[in-house]
Amino acid sequence: MKNYTSISDIDDLEGIIREARSLKVKNPESRVGTGKTLGMLFFNPSLRTRLSTEKAAKLLGMEVMVMNVGTDGWALEFEDGAVMNSDKAEHVREAAAVLSQYCDIIAVRAFPGLKDREKDESEQVLNSFKKYASVPVVNLESATGHPLQALADAITIQENNMVKRPKVVLSWAPHPKALPQSVANSFVEMMQRLEVDLVITNPEGYDLAPNIRKDTKVEHDQEKAFEDADFVYVKNWSSYENYGQVLNVQKNWTVDQAKLKNSNNAKVMHCLPVRRNVVIADDVLDSENSIVIQQANNRTFAAQVVLKRILECTK
Amino acid sequence: MKNYTSISDIDDLEGIIREARSLKVKNPESRVGTGKTLGMLFFNPSLRTRLSTEKAAKLLGMEVMVMNVGTDGWALEFEDGAVMNSDKAEHVREAAAVLSQYCDIIAVRAFPGLKDREKDESEQVLNSFKKYASVPVVNLESATGHPLQALADAITIQENNMVKRPKVVLSWAPHPKALPQSVANSFVEMMQRLEVDLVITNPEGYDLAPNIRKDTKVEHDQEKAFEDADFVYVKNWSSYENYGQVLNVQKNWTVDQAKLKNSNNAKVMHCLPVRRNVVIADDVLDSENSIVIQQANNRTFAAQVVLKRILECTK
Amino acid sequence: MKNYTSISDIDDLEGIIREARSLKVKNPESRVGTGKTLGMLFFNPSLRTRLSTEKAAKLLGMEVMVMNVGTDGWALEFEDGAVMNSDKAEHVREAAAVLSQYCDIIAVRAFPGLKDREKDESEQVLNSFKKYASVPVVNLESATGHPLQALADAITIQENNMVKRPKVVLSWAPHPKALPQSVANSFVEMMQRLEVDLVITNPEGYDLAPNIRKDTKVEHDQEKAFEDADFVYVKNWSSYENYGQVLNVQKNWTVDQAKLKNSNNAKVMHCLPVRRNVVIADDVLDSENSIVIQQANNRTFAAQVVLKRILECTK
Repeated sequence: MKNYTSISDIDDLEGIIREARSLKVKNPESRVGTGKTLGMLFFNPSLRTRLSTEKAAKLLGMEVMVMNVGTDGWALEFEDGAVMNSDKAEHVREAAAVLSQYCDIIAVRAFPGLKDREKDESEQVLNSFKKYASVPVVNLESATGHPLQALADAITIQENNMVKRPKVVLSWAPHPKALPQSVANSFVEMMQRLEVDLVITNPEGYDLAPNIRKDTKVEHDQEKAFEDADFVYVKNWSSYENYGQVLNVQKNWTVDQAKLKNSNNAKVMHCLPVRRNVVIADDVLDSENSIVIQQANNRTFAAQVVLKRILECTK
Repeated sequence: MKNYTSISDIDDLEGIIREARSLKVKNPESRVGTGKTLGMLFFNPSLRTRLSTEKAAKLLGMEVMVMNVGTDGWALEFEDGAVMNSDKAEHVREAAAVLSQYCDIIAVRAFPGLKDREKDESEQVLNSFKKYASVPVVNLESATGHPLQALADAITIQENNMVKRPKVVLSWAPHPKALPQSVANSFVEMMQRLEVDLVITNPEGYDLAPNIRKDTKVEHDQEKAFEDADFVYVKNWSSYENYGQVLNVQKNWTVDQAKLKNSNNAKVMHCLPVRRNVVIADDVLDSENSIVIQQANNRTFAAQVVLKRILECTK
Repeated sequence: MKNYTSISDIDDLEGIIREARSLKVKNPESRVGTGKTLGMLFFNPSLRTRLSTEKAAKLLGMEVMVMNVGTDGWALEFEDGAVMNSDKAEHVREAAAVLSQYCDIIAVRAFPGLKDREKDESEQVLNSFKKYASVPVVNLESATGHPLQALADAITIQENNMVKRPKVVLSWAPHPKALPQSVANSFVEMMQRLEVDLVITNPEGYDLAPNIRKDTKVEHDQEKAFEDADFVYVKNWSSYENYGQVLNVQKNWTVDQAKLKNSNNAKVMHCLPVRRNVVIADDVLDSENSIVIQQANNRTFAAQVVLKRILECTK
């Protein structure tokens, strides 16, 4: 694996999930990361991604250097040809090239602005690092995708699946703030590659981008979507059509036990952080159906297998 | 030791002090923390606690991950049943459970609000982590206690004591801001378990909580309290009676050499940071009587023995 | 080496450059830093210095603890005899002495205020740590110098030099903000000790301090200065004469390819971060003449040789 910036960087999905699960059972004695350094750049806050990726790197023997861009370092310029006489002190061309001198892998978190769809879809921050870094780049959640989360999701579904071809429902849920579509996008892309029946359910106006949905079924009736579901993945996202907006939704989309009554005793997933009683009700999160903590735990092994494969490729 | 959230978690006080002092002399070759991770969560600033605990963990072979909650991560909700549609993005139930997936021990610093006594005494933050984490929890200073500091204090007094039963005076001193009672509380609790004559001296209105003081003598005349003292521990705290308030105190309570003249050449202690010439005068801090730096050094060995005992218990 | 706070701490310049270059080729197996801790204190932002010094320390086997003073810890007081009843919670006397308990080397970054020349030249922060710490102190850029940068610069010039005695030109360049003279100062001091012909070029009003310049030639005509140059080191600094001010400069001092046409195909250097098309034009930074990334890479080996020599000296 040369980089891990989107799901499409995975060739061998079954193999990578199998290897992640075996890393979870037993950390290998030979540490492929010894003497190697992971640099993690955060343009946005992070709990799980920060800690699970740091832990994964250290399990491989890597050193980890963490930078909160903007507070620890310098404001970055991304525009080519910019005359930098204002608030940006460093261009990504230098930042990425310099970090490549100190780090063997660079991992970047950069959320979308949610104002300008075209700009967000250009993935300027992530792609600039990919372009100007001379070492592999890992996506810690970008404007449009969160492939490490999606890999952890796939591992978690495999661990919990008890049927030949499970029904997996991705359900939109309410949230007071405008959130990116990135987690939902990568989850959909990941599920499209697994042996599952995927249904997306969301209110009108919240359909994901056509190039993400492809021919995946979208059901605007949440309870109908939940019928016979084996897995319900809950997540808010802001509107793609009315880009970045929080629309007025009449019905209550919060996921509670009552709504799951016609599911196949569905396991409930969420990438966390989750707003209780807004996105998912206490009665679900505190029940046996919730596998959100196991899912968060799998972030470590998703990151570990990705870093391991990248290191093996650059040796 | 299962957790270290208060002095009462110590069964074997003499044994733990002895082991800390032996760790100070010689770091053991076998590293009980190898492959284990300490997660440190700071809701408030920290210098000594942060660095000494990190150093202690690394001396044991542990990896350390540090989070400044609020700037690095997400604002946390602590109320059960909360409808999280406002500024809190994550509930402590998830945060503690998830951190337990990545860390083998979780250490938490969370100061009191000093507005609502009952709420502070409920130790909501610390106890929430203790309740929802599945790994041991260490107190890096909570609303009402600072047991790692108190253990370092006990080590320091033992190292410097030259009499059978020393007189130890805890003296209140002035400070421009309202500070917690936590250091004073834990110091009193610790001294009550050692072979010392403990006297607390503070202005009227600054008596510590009755359940902390118990039958310890409180002397409102500072100079009288200092007579024949072998150790003077200086520390400001805000009023417990007029909870969280800075009261108008007529007399000057700053500790200087003149006040110590009738002591038994007392050693002077403070947990640091100390405001010079407000809490303690330069002539004391720059004298041979001050053992504040040695005391700060012992923070490392206090933390090391606590982490070591917890790791030995979870093996 | 006992400390590294200025160029003058280097006795054996040729030897130290040779050792740094050999560390770059091959990291030694024996790790002199094992069991030792580097504490890094940042009063200001940092990217290269933070990461290269952390990496250097880890290459030597050291543990690294990083503190952003002010956000992670407590505001520090530096004045002797201060009555600390205002916003400063801790005096540098305690902070430095305590850090010396936890760290084997203390590294400090503290920029000048650029308001009061005399105060900046007193190097209060750096010198306070040097005075009150009981362990060696390393300068990560202080009010008036950046000796780790200057050592990396010397390594870079030696690596790229192809003539017996190269002509090295330090050129002032424009910048929207008032910047310290520290990088320029240390570069001049370093070049004065090497076998180079050094010329400084800057607009009238921007001459560096007389005690730095000594008898180094200052040429106010930039293009004339660049004639036959083998190396052009570009850097902005605020006025020393009109201390800390950004003066009105008529001519354009941005370094572009046209200005270098009469140079000896000069290699172009900058300490970074560099504002593109203000300090140096894209056509230079994106050309073969630019060696700024190699120069940034050498920061690691400059820091490594300095830390190694300090550790060897304290054994």
